Amino acid sequence: MPKIITISREFGSGGREIGKRLADILNVRYLDLEIVEAIAKETNLDENYLQNKLENSMDTYPVTFGNSFSHIFQISNSAMLIAKQHQIIKEIASKSDCVIVGRGADAILSNMNPFKIFIYADINSKIIRCKQRMTAGEYMSDKQLLKKINSIDKKRKSLHSLYASYTWGDKTGYNLCVNTSNMNIKDLILPILKMIEVYFKED
Amino acid sequence: MPKIITISREFGSGGREIGKRLADILNVRYLDLEIVEAIAKETNLDENYLQNKLENSMDTYPVTFGNSFSHIFQISNSAMLIAKQHQIIKEIASKSDCVIVGRGADAILSNMNPFKIFIYADINSKIIRCKQRMTAGEYMSDKQLLKKINSIDKKRKSLHSLYASYTWGDKTGYNLCVNTSNMNIKDLILPILKMIEVYFKED
Repeated sequence: MPKIITISREFGSGGREIGKRLADILNVRYLDLEIVEAIAKETNLDENYLQNKLENSMDTYPVTFGNSFSHIFQISNSAMLIAKQHQIIKEIASKSDCVIVGRGADAILSNMNPFKIFIYADINSKIIRCKQRMTAGEYMSDKQLLKKINSIDKKRKSLHSLYASYTWGDKTGYNLCVNTSNMNIKDLILPILKMIEVYFKED
Repeated sequence: MPKIITISREFGSGGREIGKRLADILNVRYLDLEIVEAIAKETNLDENYLQNKLENSMDTYPVTFGNSFSHIFQISNSAMLIAKQHQIIKEIASKSDCVIVGRGADAILSNMNPFKIFIYADINSKIIRCKQRMTAGEYMSDKQLLKKINSIDKKRKSLHSLYASYTWGDKTGYNLCVNTSNMNIKDLILPILKMIEVYFKED
C-alpha cells in the first residue's frame, strides 16, 4: 500500500509549506493542483472556478432547502463536485506515495492508514505569517486578517464534517499535532520526517 | 534559563515512559518523586499519603461547601498541598534542565517557556498498554480498565483546571501532541528529541 501523508492545517500556520517540503525531501508526489486538474478534465469545468467552488462549497448549503431551481442546482452542483473530488483523491492517492494538504484527505483515505498531521499555531503567529506572505501593495489590518483566518478555518471545519467521523482539529483524529507558533517551518521538517519514518516502519 | 520539558498524558498512553527515556537520553533530571520528597520534608507528611492526596485532591472539593469541621479541614489540607506542590515545582525546576511528567507543570512553569508535550492514544491501545504493565496475578477486565482510565483522566483534567488557562488535552496549550496508538514508545523518542532540539534552538 502506498505511504500517504495527509496534512490538515489552520490557515496561516505554515501547513502547506510543511507539506511541500516533506514531499520534496521524500521525493514523493505533492497532490494539490493535480486533483483539481483531474476534476476539470472529467467535468469540463474551469480549474479556477473549481478551486473556488471546492473551497467554498459549504456556503451554498442552506439550513433548509430553498425551492428555486437555481438554488437546487447550486446544491447538487457542489455536492457533485465534492463527490468527484472524493473519488479522484482515492484514485490518485492509491497510485504511489504522496503528500496531500487539506481536502479532507485524512478522512477520505483513512482506510489506507495515512500518517495524519495537524498543523496549528497561536493567532499572533498566524497573523505574522499571513503578512509575510502578502504581495507588494497588498494590505490587510490585523483585525481583517483575524476575520479572514477564522472564516477560512470555519469553512475547513464544515467541509471536513462531510467526510470525517472526528472533528477537524481534534487531536484524536491525527497521529501528530504540531504547534508552529514562533517556529521556523524549515526547522520542523526533520523532526516530522523522523516521526513519519517511525510510523511507516511500524505500520 | 533552564530547558524544561513537560509531559502531560492520558493514562495508559505511555507518557511516563517517554518522559523517563527523554530525561535519560538528555541526561537531565526526571522530576517525579523528588517533588513529593520535598513536600514531605517541608510538611512532615508521609510520602505515600502525599502522593495519593495530590492525585485525588479534587475528590475532596464539594460542589457546595459543607459545614462540618472535618470537611473544611479536608478542603484546606488539599488546597495547601496543591499550593505547596506548585511552589516546590517552581523551585526545583528553576535549578537546572529537567523533564516533568504531569502535576500541572506545563501551566505552573509556563513563564519559563517549557516545551510542552501531550501524549495520547486511542482507547484500545491504552487498554493494551495497561494490561502489559499489570503485575502477575493482577487482573482487570477491559470494562474495568476503561472505567479506570476515564476516571483518572477526569481527575487530571480537573486538577489541571486549577493551574491552567487552557483545557487539559486541548492541543492549543501544547507545542506537540503525539498519538501513541499502535506505536512502539521507544521508537518515538528520537523524533521527539529532534523536535525539542528545534524548539530550544529557536527559543
